[in-house]
Formats: sequence, structure tokens, C-alpha cells
Amino acid sequence: MTKRAVAVLGVGLVEPDEAVLTSDDLGLTRGDGCFEATRVVTTEDGSHLIDHLDAHLDRLQVSAQALGMPDVDRSAWRGLITQLLAGWDVAGEATLKLMLTRGRESTPTGPTTGIATLTPTSEISLRLRRTGISVIILSRGTASYAYTAAPWLLGGVKTLSYAVNVAASRIALQRGADDVIFTSSDGYILEGPTSAVVWSSSGRLHTTPTGPTGILASITQRALFDAAEAAGIPTSYTLGTVAELRASDGVWLVSSARGVVAVHTINGNQLAHTPALSDRIAALAGF
Amino acid sequence: MTKRAVAVLGVGLVEPDEAVLTSDDLGLTRGDGCFEATRVVTTEDGSHLIDHLDAHLDRLQVSAQALGMPDVDRSAWRGLITQLLAGWDVAGEATLKLMLTRGRESTPTGPTTGIATLTPTSEISLRLRRTGISVIILSRGTASYAYTAAPWLLGGVKTLSYAVNVAASRIALQRGADDVIFTSSDGYILEGPTSAVVWSSSGRLHTTPTGPTGILASITQRALFDAAEAAGIPTSYTLGTVAELRASDGVWLVSSARGVVAVHTINGNQLAHTPALSDRIAALAGF
Repeated sequence: MTKRAVAVLGVGLVEPDEAVLTSDDLGLTRGDGCFEATRVVTTEDGSHLIDHLDAHLDRLQVSAQALGMPDVDRSAWRGLITQLLAGWDVAGEATLKLMLTRGRESTPTGPTTGIATLTPTSEISLRLRRTGISVIILSRGTASYAYTAAPWLLGGVKTLSYAVNVAASRIALQRGADDVIFTSSDGYILEGPTSAVVWSSSGRLHTTPTGPTGILASITQRALFDAAEAAGIPTSYTLGTVAELRASDGVWLVSSARGVVAVHTINGNQLAHTPALSDRIAALAGF
Repeated sequence: MTKRAVAVLGVGLVEPDEAVLTSDDLGLTRGDGCFEATRVVTTEDGSHLIDHLDAHLDRLQVSAQALGMPDVDRSAWRGLITQLLAGWDVAGEATLKLMLTRGRESTPTGPTTGIATLTPTSEISLRLRRTGISVIILSRGTASYAYTAAPWLLGGVKTLSYAVNVAASRIALQRGADDVIFTSSDGYILEGPTSAVVWSSSGRLHTTPTGPTGILASITQRALFDAAEAAGIPTSYTLGTVAELRASDGVWLVSSARGVVAVHTINGNQLAHTPALSDRIAALAGF
């Protein structure tokens, strides 16, 4: 089994195979909690680089607030991450995951549960970053404006309730594809199950707007767009269609752990794909 | 703290406060799993009556299959439930919960995780059964036909990814109501966050059809409709509107643990409510 490291808020480091959650933790019973994932690069001399930790802690706080949970204790999380990294000497890329649940059902006023894990980034992710991916288009079932004034739908909240994302990814594999791009019921590009969609058209980068669409605000996409603008490449938040992706100069799925992955095929049809452009996009995003 | 009992498949009884789930269990990391809940009545002499256990194991199997998980081991679950009940002597109603997760992320070919818990039914649930409830109407964001040929949306699957249901219930409480009735984006009655909606109109009981609507097939509603038909009360699966609920002779939220609860108020407006009719409906449903 691959080496993993696990730490629990208020406890510290635990054995990776140790059980950490009770049977009535709302993270289990209801998927009631939120999480973050980002990349940690460990160099040969054992030093660690964490991607955009501030932004991830910010987003964890946004998620917690939307779920009506107490404020995220940033310094406690930072301390826990320091403990986790102190013993981590696996050179290369790993995924740092922070999970925060509402805590135990039997103690409604009790503490939340916070767990941090560190796992080497999978070979598959690293390979797909090099080879690019094929995707299928699946409807998310909601309109591009469905999340307006509907906070109970948890648009933009990175909850632990990811069963639909897992099911969509599983169906993609069954159909011989690597991943999914979700569309809205009115035909607009939304996001991947664990990534944002970025496309290039006439020298401009596009991605789907957050808010009414319900998609997650992607930290990697934001970093990419900031770097692109600084490099003179214009960016837009655009409601796009599959036809627009097909007519584009390139499509990428971007996420904190897997990085920037070029989409070479949509629903079995090959896309325009310029490796040099993908390399540039990846570099701008820090990958 | 209230007495609870917990048992784990392949392990047996564990202490209720013992941690049972590792940090990489997909039930936690992705809400990737399914569950069932039903009522157990314990008499003063210590014997136990479990409501519709066969039907719940059937539905657990349907959920597991939809999630691409291995077949449910019914005899193992039955054995676990027997162990759980053997030590349970709290007279009155309890909720038996069966939770099944895909297992650990770090061992993709490893076993699923199965957990059974027994908890006394909350005073709030028992009280609401007597007093009835007020509900607010919230959109579920999906059309009444959104789940047609879209198995990745997990319509009808009782997954552990219930964060939206929890959020909707929380917003109801914030707005001074007890519960929620979800409607589709095209304006039809769907279900409650943890219950089915039943209404009576011109002597006929109605509920929302499953399938394209994505709602869960309710075991309590099914038992109610079977008993109603046997008693000469006709039943229908109907796409209804809030206006039809308002014009009805009665509206109930039904579920396995809370039973049959009359809705006396929708969005602040009182409904027709005949206690004798509610009593009859509850009795037909076995409550």
C-alpha cells in the first residue's frame, strides 16, 4: 500500500490505517461537511511547497459558512499541516486533503471533525497530465441559473457529498473515456466532477462563471487567469456550449492536484490540440 | 448522551463512541455509499419489531447496484442486526440505520464498509408526529423529468451524499418552519429531505412518481398505499403542484423513522387538516 499520512484536529498525527470517525459523524451519515485538496511538492532535500494554501483555507471557510458551520480555525489547520509535513519525505507530488465535518450527531453542540491527509499523487493523474484526456458530456440536471437565490442547493460549496461526481466519473470509464464535462440542462458548459473547464478561443481564455451556475470557484483556474492576464492573455467568464468547445483552440480541465490536463477528445470526436499551447497554459497555472 | 448501539460488518458490536471509519473511507471522502433507516419497536418484555426489513434490504441492494458496488450480503446484515438488537433493551421506538460505503480509497479492490446503528427515535420526531408540522417549499433545481436516462444523477438512490437535504432542513428551521417540501424547477411536488409527500384529494391518496423525478421510492408510502388500496381507498402516482396541495383534504410527510406527519402549514398558510383523516392514514401506514 502507498504511504499515506493522516492527522486529526485536536489529536495530531495518527496511524494511516487507524479509524478516525465515529459511526454518527455527520460527515459519514449525511456527507455533511466540506473539504479542500491541493498539491504538495516535496523536493529531494525534503522541503515542502504547498500550492495556494491561503486560498484553500479561504475556500474552506466559504464552504463552512455556507453550511452554517463554525469558522475555520486557520491556525489550528496550519499547525496540523505542519505536523503532517514534518514526517513526510516522499519526494515528488502529493495531494494534501483537508476534510471538515459537522461533527457527531449525538453531540449536536460538540466540536466539528477536522482531518488532514497526505497521499502521493496517483500515477494515473501524472500520466493524464502528459497524455491529455478524452471526456464525455453529461448533463448535471440543473439549469445555468438554477442556483440563484437558492443557498440550500449549496452551489459553489465544496461539500463531502460527491456521490454524483463519483458516479459520473465511473460512467465515463465504463464508456471508455477518462473524465466528464457536465453541462447545464439548458446546454451550457459547467465543470468537471473534480475540475474546472478552461478553453481558448481567438487568443482569449474562457471559463464558466460561478454563482447562478452552481459551479465551484476553482483556485487553479483563478491562478491561471491571473497569470494569463499578467502575461497579456485576455480572460473571460463565459457561458459556452459544447459546439464552442469543439470550435476552440484548446480545452483543459484544471484542478489543484491533477493540474492542467488537455482534453483531446469530446464524446469520441477529436479536438484541436496544440501541445505548445497546453504547455504554456500549464506553466501559467504553475504546473 | 443517549444510549446508542453500533455494529460493523465483519467486526461485530463496537463501543458507540469508538471510531469505525478510516480517513480514506470513500463514505467520508466522497459521500460515496448508501444507507437505509427504519423503525425498531422494543416492547417492555424486550422483544423487537423491525419495520419492513426485507424492503429496506431490497432498497439497499438497489442503491448499491446503482452505485456499481458489490451485491449486498443480506445474511451478513441480518446477522449484524441480530447482534445489535440482542443487547438493546430500551423500550419504545428506535431508528435502525444501515450504512454501506465503497470502502477505502487506498485499497480499491478491498471490502466495502458496513455499519449498523441503533438510536432511540428523537423526542422531536415523536412530538411532530402528534402536532403536525409546518413546511416551506424549496426548489430542488431539477426538472420533473431530469433523471430520465441519467443514471449518474443517482435518482432514486439513497446515497450518503445528503448535504443538500441537511441544508434545506436547516433553512426551514431558520425560517421558523419544521421541514421542507422540494419542488421541481417546473413546479411539481417532489419529496421532503427525508420523507415522501402524500396528499388526499376527493377521497384518493396521491404521491409523486419515482423515475424521471429522481425521488426516492419510499417504503412507508408504499406500505401506506398497499394498505389503503386493501381498505378500498384508491391511490395514484401524480405530478402535483403546491396549489393542488393547498386545495387538498390533507398533506402528510411519511418516512420510516418519523412515520406519518401531517402538514398543517405551507409557506405560512394553513392547510385543511382533519385529525381523524391523519389518524387513519397513520394507522394504515403502521404508525
